[in-house]
Amino acid sequence: MNILDIICKKRDKVELSKQEINFFVEGYTNGEVTDYQAAALIMAIYLNGMTDEEITNLTLAMAYSGEVLDLSKLGENVVDKHSTGGIGDKITLILMPIVAALGVPVAKMSGRGLGFTGGTVDKLESIPGYNTQISVEEFIQNVENIGISLMGQTLNLAPADKKIYALRDSISCVESIPLIASSIMSKKIASGANKIVLEVTVGNGAFMKDIDDAKKLAETMINIGKLAGKEVVCILTNMDEPLGYSIGNTLEVIEATEALQGDMDEDVKQVVLELGSYMIKLAGFGDDIESNKQKMLDCIDSGMAYMKFLELIQNQGGDISYINDVSKFENAKYIYTVLSEKDGYIKSIDAQSLGKISCELGAGRVKKEDVIDNQVGLIINKKIGEKIEKDDILGIIHANDELKLKNAIEDFKKSFTICEEYVEKPEVILGIME
Amino acid sequence: MNILDIICKKRDKVELSKQEINFFVEGYTNGEVTDYQAAALIMAIYLNGMTDEEITNLTLAMAYSGEVLDLSKLGENVVDKHSTGGIGDKITLILMPIVAALGVPVAKMSGRGLGFTGGTVDKLESIPGYNTQISVEEFIQNVENIGISLMGQTLNLAPADKKIYALRDSISCVESIPLIASSIMSKKIASGANKIVLEVTVGNGAFMKDIDDAKKLAETMINIGKLAGKEVVCILTNMDEPLGYSIGNTLEVIEATEALQGDMDEDVKQVVLELGSYMIKLAGFGDDIESNKQKMLDCIDSGMAYMKFLELIQNQGGDISYINDVSKFENAKYIYTVLSEKDGYIKSIDAQSLGKISCELGAGRVKKEDVIDNQVGLIINKKIGEKIEKDDILGIIHANDELKLKNAIEDFKKSFTICEEYVEKPEVILGIME
Repeated sequence: MNILDIICKKRDKVELSKQEINFFVEGYTNGEVTDYQAAALIMAIYLNGMTDEEITNLTLAMAYSGEVLDLSKLGENVVDKHSTGGIGDKITLILMPIVAALGVPVAKMSGRGLGFTGGTVDKLESIPGYNTQISVEEFIQNVENIGISLMGQTLNLAPADKKIYALRDSISCVESIPLIASSIMSKKIASGANKIVLEVTVGNGAFMKDIDDAKKLAETMINIGKLAGKEVVCILTNMDEPLGYSIGNTLEVIEATEALQGDMDEDVKQVVLELGSYMIKLAGFGDDIESNKQKMLDCIDSGMAYMKFLELIQNQGGDISYINDVSKFENAKYIYTVLSEKDGYIKSIDAQSLGKISCELGAGRVKKEDVIDNQVGLIINKKIGEKIEKDDILGIIHANDELKLKNAIEDFKKSFTICEEYVEKPEVILGIME
Repeated sequence: MNILDIICKKRDKVELSKQEINFFVEGYTNGEVTDYQAAALIMAIYLNGMTDEEITNLTLAMAYSGEVLDLSKLGENVVDKHSTGGIGDKITLILMPIVAALGVPVAKMSGRGLGFTGGTVDKLESIPGYNTQISVEEFIQNVENIGISLMGQTLNLAPADKKIYALRDSISCVESIPLIASSIMSKKIASGANKIVLEVTVGNGAFMKDIDDAKKLAETMINIGKLAGKEVVCILTNMDEPLGYSIGNTLEVIEATEALQGDMDEDVKQVVLELGSYMIKLAGFGDDIESNKQKMLDCIDSGMAYMKFLELIQNQGGDISYINDVSKFENAKYIYTVLSEKDGYIKSIDAQSLGKISCELGAGRVKKEDVIDNQVGLIINKKIGEKIEKDDILGIIHANDELKLKNAIEDFKKSFTICEEYVEKPEVILGIME
């Protein structure tokens, strides 16, 4: 077997065997297959596609290219959750304590953010003392003790995926459904869960810009799950505007805290309830989605979800006094209120542009080495479909640099389109696929 | 402009501009574009194709990526000749002295062979004393003095083509008509000629296995010529069996010598006459192809062509006593005669297999550094369509190594298919495109 024949086959639209895909993934991971050969093969895959069988074999080869987390000690009920991402996405912080309080074991390794905003790990680290770099033993022990642990990716999970992902980025081969699907699923499989709820975001703030592509991606990941023996449910959600009202690490932790105390934006609530009710179902704790949602609402109302959040944070060394009194979080130097310049209805919000603005304020990373400024970010006061009057508050910019603040103001205003006619609120949940 | 956008466009089947193609070729030549980015772009070109405009821009960018030979001192009549190659191809050695004797200025830089057999330069170097590494000034002076010079590629001609060609070889992207056409034409343009006769070989011993691909390649090169202001004629020739009767450097020099003395195999004669008559036409020395052929035959009969051959060799330091008495060439250690094992007609000859055998005997190079053994090679005594009887001579193997000889014998026999039914001789000239 040699890489030239493998490239040849994919170039000529011939299906690759499991052995050939393993040969490529192993060879590329250990350096026997060169970057340029991998680049040629990846471009051929991009253009000629892959069968479900090939995608699954690629996924498994990447998943097993490094360490694989062993969650067997935690039994059959562990359900992982993943989102294809969006602007202001703090769902993990809110959702996980709720389902954990309802008995679903939560053992989740999260990544750092690269791009517009911080990842879950970055958000957790904005809570003073919270340790995301615990050992795997401690991680599993925590789940056994209190039913939940959220930590950073310390293991060398799916190194082949990391290498291929970085390559795709530098050869314009990112937007390929087989490659996106296998990348996500390889990390999930390496993370050890057998049951996975996937949020596939759609819209201008998401990776998938239209619903058809999102459906195809969801279908592909469900098929990988079937062939790889993993139960997968996909929830398609709207990402045409940011999720919730805040963007930025500390701001999002505060929003998550309020949400777990019962004060949740409608879009966040819908996403949390939908994902959570399917997690509960996959964990075997109830097949009825509507009653699962009710259980979650009750869990929030009773304070159990909030208590679980505090328990999680305390258990990993975080100072819960900040959570119990969020005013303890130090504010950014400049807090600038942006007012509306006219009357009307919010017609659209450019989520991607808001992501860029907050990234430029310091809330995101452009390079891996960049240090995130936890304090900065944006508050969005009006969402699509809301009525607004001149001089109403459109949003608030939290900045630590005067020049950056100045640059942000105009762009922030431009991110909102206000029209005279009534605008309907967008659907939040666009579909369920299982 | 950046390479990611350029890859993106080609990936999405959008035509690349002249500026974008120049950006890629320059960037790749100077190392700013990486091998893996070039690999991704080349695979996208392979799969999505290129317009004639794009192919021409790629050709020109590669042609001007290094030195360009200036033949302007030799006037407007210089006509270059190129073949896409085959087994036993000694046409340049025979053809060039004939047209030079008829007044067409011949200034040809040739490459070394990589693959089955030596290139023209290797063959010339098997003549004791012949210097292929003369200066460009001497080269042009030679053409001015005696009308002909054949030398090796000493200039850094089309370095971008060299780099892209090597890359294609290591990413399974060799067989692409836009890439083959631009590679050939970039070298021809860098070699300075404005008029080019191209022999496009077709068949199992050639790069193009079927006539449709060959026609497409010819058409593409003619279009490049039109857009780049070069006059191009393509002659399609059959390469289902080796050309002439010998394979191997010294053996082919001997065959060329005999041919110039009037003793030519029928297939060699047809190719030489066809190419030559179009060279004469492009040089402006006669539009009538049939009368050009007659001029060439007369030139051979009169001894003028042979004299020009001797003049060429002597002028570049070669010892013409070897040519005047080819028995002076030292023979290989083993000369083994292969006899036919049955009666019948030669149905087919596997030219590619004969190429491999002679390469393994030492007549070709696998790696650039390999040293060619000039003495070894093969003599083919029967061509397709010829009648043969048991114990008739099928061919002769010239070897310098007993083990290699042993290995060659069975493979040599297997390269010939003999059947009972009468077999028609194949057409040699398959088409003319201009």
